[in-house]
Amino acid sequence: MFPRDFFVRPLAKRVAGAAGGAVAPHPGVVVPDGVRLFVPDLIRRKRDGGELSAVEIGALVSAHAAGDVPDYQMSAMLMAIVFRGLSADELVAWTEAMIGSGESLDHSGVPGAKVDKHSTGGVGDKISLCLAPAVASLGVRVPMISGRGLGHTGGTLDKLEAIPGLRVDLSAGEARSVLERAGLFMIGQTDRLAPADRRLYALRDVTGTVESIPLIASSIMSKKLAEGIDALVLDVKVGEGAFMRDEERGRELARTIIGIGEAAGVRVKALLTRMDRPIGRAVGNALEVREAIEVMRGAGPPDTVELTRELGAEMLVLGGAAESADLAREAISRALEGGAALEVFARLVEAQGGDPEAVRDPSRLPAAAGRAEVTAQRSGFVARIDPKAVARAALEVGAGRRTKEDSVRPATGVEVLVGVGESVGAGGTLAEIHHDGVGRDDAVAIAAGAFEIRDAPPEAVPLVLGRM
Amino acid sequence: MFPRDFFVRPLAKRVAGAAGGAVAPHPGVVVPDGVRLFVPDLIRRKRDGGELSAVEIGALVSAHAAGDVPDYQMSAMLMAIVFRGLSADELVAWTEAMIGSGESLDHSGVPGAKVDKHSTGGVGDKISLCLAPAVASLGVRVPMISGRGLGHTGGTLDKLEAIPGLRVDLSAGEARSVLERAGLFMIGQTDRLAPADRRLYALRDVTGTVESIPLIASSIMSKKLAEGIDALVLDVKVGEGAFMRDEERGRELARTIIGIGEAAGVRVKALLTRMDRPIGRAVGNALEVREAIEVMRGAGPPDTVELTRELGAEMLVLGGAAESADLAREAISRALEGGAALEVFARLVEAQGGDPEAVRDPSRLPAAAGRAEVTAQRSGFVARIDPKAVARAALEVGAGRRTKEDSVRPATGVEVLVGVGESVGAGGTLAEIHHDGVGRDDAVAIAAGAFEIRDAPPEAVPLVLGRM
Repeated sequence: MFPRDFFVRPLAKRVAGAAGGAVAPHPGVVVPDGVRLFVPDLIRRKRDGGELSAVEIGALVSAHAAGDVPDYQMSAMLMAIVFRGLSADELVAWTEAMIGSGESLDHSGVPGAKVDKHSTGGVGDKISLCLAPAVASLGVRVPMISGRGLGHTGGTLDKLEAIPGLRVDLSAGEARSVLERAGLFMIGQTDRLAPADRRLYALRDVTGTVESIPLIASSIMSKKLAEGIDALVLDVKVGEGAFMRDEERGRELARTIIGIGEAAGVRVKALLTRMDRPIGRAVGNALEVREAIEVMRGAGPPDTVELTRELGAEMLVLGGAAESADLAREAISRALEGGAALEVFARLVEAQGGDPEAVRDPSRLPAAAGRAEVTAQRSGFVARIDPKAVARAALEVGAGRRTKEDSVRPATGVEVLVGVGESVGAGGTLAEIHHDGVGRDDAVAIAAGAFEIRDAPPEAVPLVLGRM
Repeated sequence: MFPRDFFVRPLAKRVAGAAGGAVAPHPGVVVPDGVRLFVPDLIRRKRDGGELSAVEIGALVSAHAAGDVPDYQMSAMLMAIVFRGLSADELVAWTEAMIGSGESLDHSGVPGAKVDKHSTGGVGDKISLCLAPAVASLGVRVPMISGRGLGHTGGTLDKLEAIPGLRVDLSAGEARSVLERAGLFMIGQTDRLAPADRRLYALRDVTGTVESIPLIASSIMSKKLAEGIDALVLDVKVGEGAFMRDEERGRELARTIIGIGEAAGVRVKALLTRMDRPIGRAVGNALEVREAIEVMRGAGPPDTVELTRELGAEMLVLGGAAESADLAREAISRALEGGAALEVFARLVEAQGGDPEAVRDPSRLPAAAGRAEVTAQRSGFVARIDPKAVARAALEVGAGRRTKEDSVRPATGVEVLVGVGESVGAGGTLAEIHHDGVGRDDAVAIAAGAFEIRDAPPEAVPLVLGRM
């Protein structure tokens, strides 16, 4: 039935000949431990619902990372995985292959449990900034490797870099030394950890193959397992309000990551948390650092404090620093209210080259020259704040980047003044746009559209939707 | 839920930045008629079961053909199509885009209906060689563009080239002149007809995306419609014996092709024919030419004659040269038995530079120096001859090519002496391997395994399974 391919299994050499145009003359044959693989056979097997062996996956991923399997074959494989998924064994092999493509950190010389947190990403998510110091102040080491934001507001690294002088591009040796001195580090991903994932992610990004739970899970875990951690707490954000499907997918992602962790001997706990509004009041890099400092001063928005406490409690329990979740919550609250977390944060900032005085006196953080008000068209209660719209508004004034080459404007962003459930009068100020003169009007218009005002306040909803 | 991609729709410029490794810095943005397309959005839409517009498909296919959309994006799209299919509208747009990537032939100056045949490919399928002259001898023009074999025994072009001197690489002008003089031509595909299909096929071949009915159908029809035909008869081969699924897929392919034809104003009739044994007795290029000549002398194996008659009758009716299928069958039989088909074939061979005497005296065709016998282990009736095994045996002695660069050995192949349903004694000769000293022993062993001998003859089965 098939024009050319029907009768005889294609032979490896054939591929070179069949190439036309930009299809490179590479046969896509991998030789791990003397095993010959024919990549189109692997793609077809996955496409048809079959299973790949660990040897095959290892060879495929490492050969792709080395440039020996062309992107056009890998992207077809990735799309087949989007449809067919990966079995538990395949998933472990895939993750191990990505870890094995680079180096792994080894903190075995540093005493104490090493526990990290990973969030699947939310608008205004500055939790790492107050969480990691609070946990470290209680004796659990936090070797945290974070990313930069792309397509929305800055990532944790961008937020940290709003602190004058602070460096996130530490060598392994420097990071080790910071971990010993401060009990934590917060650095950027290097090319040496799971480089295969970097390359795969770039490819997924442009081929519509990001949205696959096993691929998301293995991407996260390849980086986290290479960090050399003992345990991980996962903050799975669940989409806007009522999308049941999203919550199901969130649970599936958590289950998948927990399974990879089990296979690797790393305990993983997951919280599913609601992401239907910005976290806290601040969206933008220096603004979020300020808000995290508020939290570490025992203040700050309740949701931000709650997330810090809930996630921190899980980390303490996993790290063996608390006997129960309740005791752990109390410990986190004390660390925030008593100044211990802030002290550790200042130590971290100093150890990574930043100005520790900016932690104690946030007026030393960069501030935007301009402010613009977002006002209410009517009076009532804020029923909803669309987090995507707030992120877009922040992006307009430069708080995030549209392309990887963009630099962020550290002082810009959106500050929500009237939160969900709070009341406002007609013409009252809902939010302030912090800007450097760029994107102001667009940001105001977009941010205004983010607020939904109704006559009655919305019902309160829990922030933590589930634990796994 | 998705690590980076979650909040803001990725922007075109972003792709350049996200590229790492071999992912080229091309954004994959196409600008047809001023429309901006973001290829990852198109891939995601198809992946999620959505529909692409004709403008989008036209832009995507032509931009890929021009090298402006990278293969790694197209292969992800192709895999999404394998899973999601193409709607009727998408399919027509896809086919039109491939035709539009090149030139189309125009035979409007040549009087008479132009009708072609396409077979989805079988072992020993030399039907075109006797069919096209028979139909042309009855006044229907046959502008036939064929392919070369790859991965199994030679294609129609390879068979034709077994005739000394015959050229298949005719220019459009030469082909036109042959059509006028002989009433048909049989030439090779050029880079000018549907070049987008060439490039896509090469990519599909190495990315596990061949086996998609809409992609197969559009690939076939882009080439056939560019031939400038009025009608087409399709010979859909249905896999080995009892695989019901294959027959269903065969019907689906036929339906799909008929639909494309309808949209293009080209009538298509399809025959589903059984492909559970080699067609005729000869598998190998010159061997098949000899067998086709036998058919045009009014002899030849019954199945080969039947296929020629049934397909030819459909072509005559479509071409308006017969009033009923029964009259058309009779006309084809007369053309074969009365020598008219052979005369046209000789004219064709001469017009394309070949030796017409080789048609009248097949001993002028190349003959292999060596013969090896495939003998029966036991006595009984031949119950089955595995066509794939026969093809592999022929490949061993050089009758087909393993890579595009291979040249075929025109005289080699397999000659079946005892067909399905016929009896053989223990040690009797089932087949002869025609060889040039290469691959003999392997071919004998493989061919021996192709024959299944039982005590009783198998039930006779019809060759034509259905008409659409």
